[in-house]
Amino acid sequence: MTIAGRTYRSRLIVGTGKYKDLAQNAAAVEAAGAEIVTVAVRRVNVTNPKEPMLVDYIDPKKVTYLPNTAGCYTAEDAVRTLRLAREAGGWNLVKLEVLGDQKTLYPDMIETLRAAEALIKDGFEVMVYCTDDPIMAKKLEELGCCAIMPLAAPIGSGLGIQNPINIRLIIEQAKVPVLVDAGVGTASDAAIAMELGCDGVLMNTAIAEAKDPIRMARAMKLAVEAGRLAYLAGRMPKKKYADPSSPLSGLI
Amino acid sequence: MTIAGRTYRSRLIVGTGKYKDLAQNAAAVEAAGAEIVTVAVRRVNVTNPKEPMLVDYIDPKKVTYLPNTAGCYTAEDAVRTLRLAREAGGWNLVKLEVLGDQKTLYPDMIETLRAAEALIKDGFEVMVYCTDDPIMAKKLEELGCCAIMPLAAPIGSGLGIQNPINIRLIIEQAKVPVLVDAGVGTASDAAIAMELGCDGVLMNTAIAEAKDPIRMARAMKLAVEAGRLAYLAGRMPKKKYADPSSPLSGLI
Amino acid sequence: MTIAGRTYRSRLIVGTGKYKDLAQNAAAVEAAGAEIVTVAVRRVNVTNPKEPMLVDYIDPKKVTYLPNTAGCYTAEDAVRTLRLAREAGGWNLVKLEVLGDQKTLYPDMIETLRAAEALIKDGFEVMVYCTDDPIMAKKLEELGCCAIMPLAAPIGSGLGIQNPINIRLIIEQAKVPVLVDAGVGTASDAAIAMELGCDGVLMNTAIAEAKDPIRMARAMKLAVEAGRLAYLAGRMPKKKYADPSSPLSGLI
Amino acid sequence: MTIAGRTYRSRLIVGTGKYKDLAQNAAAVEAAGAEIVTVAVRRVNVTNPKEPMLVDYIDPKKVTYLPNTAGCYTAEDAVRTLRLAREAGGWNLVKLEVLGDQKTLYPDMIETLRAAEALIKDGFEVMVYCTDDPIMAKKLEELGCCAIMPLAAPIGSGLGIQNPINIRLIIEQAKVPVLVDAGVGTASDAAIAMELGCDGVLMNTAIAEAKDPIRMARAMKLAVEAGRLAYLAGRMPKKKYADPSSPLSGLI
Repeated sequence: MTIAGRTYRSRLIVGTGKYKDLAQNAAAVEAAGAEIVTVAVRRVNVTNPKEPMLVDYIDPKKVTYLPNTAGCYTAEDAVRTLRLAREAGGWNLVKLEVLGDQKTLYPDMIETLRAAEALIKDGFEVMVYCTDDPIMAKKLEELGCCAIMPLAAPIGSGLGIQNPINIRLIIEQAKVPVLVDAGVGTASDAAIAMELGCDGVLMNTAIAEAKDPIRMARAMKLAVEAGRLAYLAGRMPKKKYADPSSPLSGLI
Repeated sequence: MTIAGRTYRSRLIVGTGKYKDLAQNAAAVEAAGAEIVTVAVRRVNVTNPKEPMLVDYIDPKKVTYLPNTAGCYTAEDAVRTLRLAREAGGWNLVKLEVLGDQKTLYPDMIETLRAAEALIKDGFEVMVYCTDDPIMAKKLEELGCCAIMPLAAPIGSGLGIQNPINIRLIIEQAKVPVLVDAGVGTASDAAIAMELGCDGVLMNTAIAEAKDPIRMARAMKLAVEAGRLAYLAGRMPKKKYADPSSPLSGLI
Repeated sequence: MTIAGRTYRSRLIVGTGKYKDLAQNAAAVEAAGAEIVTVAVRRVNVTNPKEPMLVDYIDPKKVTYLPNTAGCYTAEDAVRTLRLAREAGGWNLVKLEVLGDQKTLYPDMIETLRAAEALIKDGFEVMVYCTDDPIMAKKLEELGCCAIMPLAAPIGSGLGIQNPINIRLIIEQAKVPVLVDAGVGTASDAAIAMELGCDGVLMNTAIAEAKDPIRMARAMKLAVEAGRLAYLAGRMPKKKYADPSSPLSGLI
Repeated sequence: MTIAGRTYRSRLIVGTGKYKDLAQNAAAVEAAGAEIVTVAVRRVNVTNPKEPMLVDYIDPKKVTYLPNTAGCYTAEDAVRTLRLAREAGGWNLVKLEVLGDQKTLYPDMIETLRAAEALIKDGFEVMVYCTDDPIMAKKLEELGCCAIMPLAAPIGSGLGIQNPINIRLIIEQAKVPVLVDAGVGTASDAAIAMELGCDGVLMNTAIAEAKDPIRMARAMKLAVEAGRLAYLAGRMPKKKYADPSSPLSGLI
């Protein structure tokens, strides 16, 4: 998976929220084989040396930190947050999310488009959380976003891909990577996303809130690989009736 | 997965029909990491040394051969077929299938019960292809079958699990391994079966009729492992609304 | 819908359990436009004149009473129950159900087949509750059952049709009426059953346990009619992409 | 259903495209019991007296004509089209659709918002075709649209509601009527929309391209009524396991 000119072997991006502690978070990243972690700029502790710091657990030299704008509800808020992040940590590759309300945590696509435009003009490489609306996804790509990240279902819902048709339409038209960003609940959800042709999957709650997060992280690593391979392999056609595995004609 | 007292690391059983040739079949078994292959007794060549023989490609010392009764439509037919197989190859662990019609290739459960009873009395270890009817599955287990193998969908259809409720009911009540046996089409189908709590999956067409069977075999290996890990990890609960990955309360 | 030589305009059969009282039950039958009600022989009061009696609320001269064997777990039990019913009420058209366990209330198909055979030999007209296994459904039809009644989902679950493929397969092969018998939860479930080509639907809990049973009975009446009409009308084909309602070529 | 201050008994709006001829269209409207028909302003013949005219078949005094902007791809185009319609026919209640591309016929929500704002400022009552994005739906309502009309699936696809969660979210938040506008394929699709709590359904292809459009129109009429009644009646809860219709405790 190549994003903003940099190639990753892993197609699984994981989050850094909701874990028991930073050690568990780091172990999950390791088990998931993730090469990118996303970090809520507003939430992560980067300045108070008395509190535990993520960078002591997940080495930014080995794992790409992808700052995100979780908690931002306007374009201005999101742009300001990412400028602060760039000043503090030099991060240029970012994940933009501008939320529309607290019940759904769906993106406000108007604000998202405005923020994306401002950030790209400002030199950021923008991966963008968006609805599964193909028309909006195209506008974001035309603005210059380097990855399109449609939601599968509400953030943290674990419901899996609600509208595979829209995800497929977005993939068919996109020339940049498409990653499913929210709503994955278990391994098969991730496999389905990849079988549709996604370039990758981003998840947080599905791992962090599994009973055994480390084991689920391993499951997700394998599921993403399985789904990718199945997509590349080209699945058998679906058939309405049965078709014997062992044709016996003329044998007995 | 322990079947009839023997433990296997792999939970994926693959078939030996529909491949381009025996070499491709062997390569798919290898890529799938399968430790059991199922072989249609009526179809496979075990006696004519001029024709290619499966045992020259897949080593029976390394991979368990599981003879099956594909093409049998009565209990008598199935019992006779497996007795011949035992005489010829010494096989005692067998997969029973007694078909009900050619359109669905669904099992005839009356004949299946009769055949299972006769085979078990005759000392066979019987893994049994059955419908997803939990009441019938229980009867088969009570007769002494060593593994219950309900269908996901018609053989060769690739439609995936049609009735997850029934598969779950069968698993909840079973004390022997439960393997989904027919109808898997792609990697996520296999993952879903394992996430329901199945002990394993048997498939043939999904691999053999993929555009790239070897790559699909690898996908299936990973999908079965992913689904098993996700089942063991204990998935997050599904939620009706969103739940933020990055709670921000009191942070800014 | 013609069953056992008698023609009904209504395709909706309703039950007589779980209602607040017999008056509500009668009102629901009226609202549903049902011409057949099914009655659990073991449960209904037909002999104690001090208790309220169903016949005082639903006139057996206007509505066909269909005695059923709810609560029977063996063929003998079911046969005995229906013989008593025939002696008591002269009922010859009956609904056979022989249950397999209390958790699923799925039929035991072995016992069901035995009971059906005995009852048909004994001159009953047998409508039969069964799994959605097409092979078993065919055996029941070959024994002489006058209607095949596969379950949509567990009795009282309200989950709707779990395996439309199996219902379709049963319909394709049947020469007698096919009615979905259990598991319908709301109006669209009934419509879907009819759109698959069912001849009718039997339900109890979906009406009796709705917040407003009478209104739900009306909903079900309309849904069954809607589904039947849609089946006869022949639905549009599904398309992968959009197709404009208002082609504009050359108009502007 | 009350839209823009006017109350309709029917909750089914039908289109005027794709029919064999205007007589069939009129018969379908009649069979559907529709009180509103939607008309593509760019397509309908309102000026050439030598060609057949819709108003000769469907009486605008009895049936509300709802002009729509099918074929418009920009806000300007849509606004201009509806102004012409108002000048020609005095129509003030309109259906706005601004399309994003020809493959999906999904709305361009940016252009749709712009057009809605301009039309409302201009005194139109605007019913608006939109994606199923609840955040965008809310913006349209806040602009003053008098009905929100999210798509179920691509126009003319007949795929039914792809994302019931989004439709439900839109309904929960809306204070104006919500009507599903595109993608319905058969009767149960319409019933499902109504069971989710929609105020109405608009369809064209599902009726016009059924093998028997008139019969399908009748089916849709009943399905919409059935779904509405089921919604008002309050469906039974779904249960994981069976629940007997005929409790027998202590009776035998």
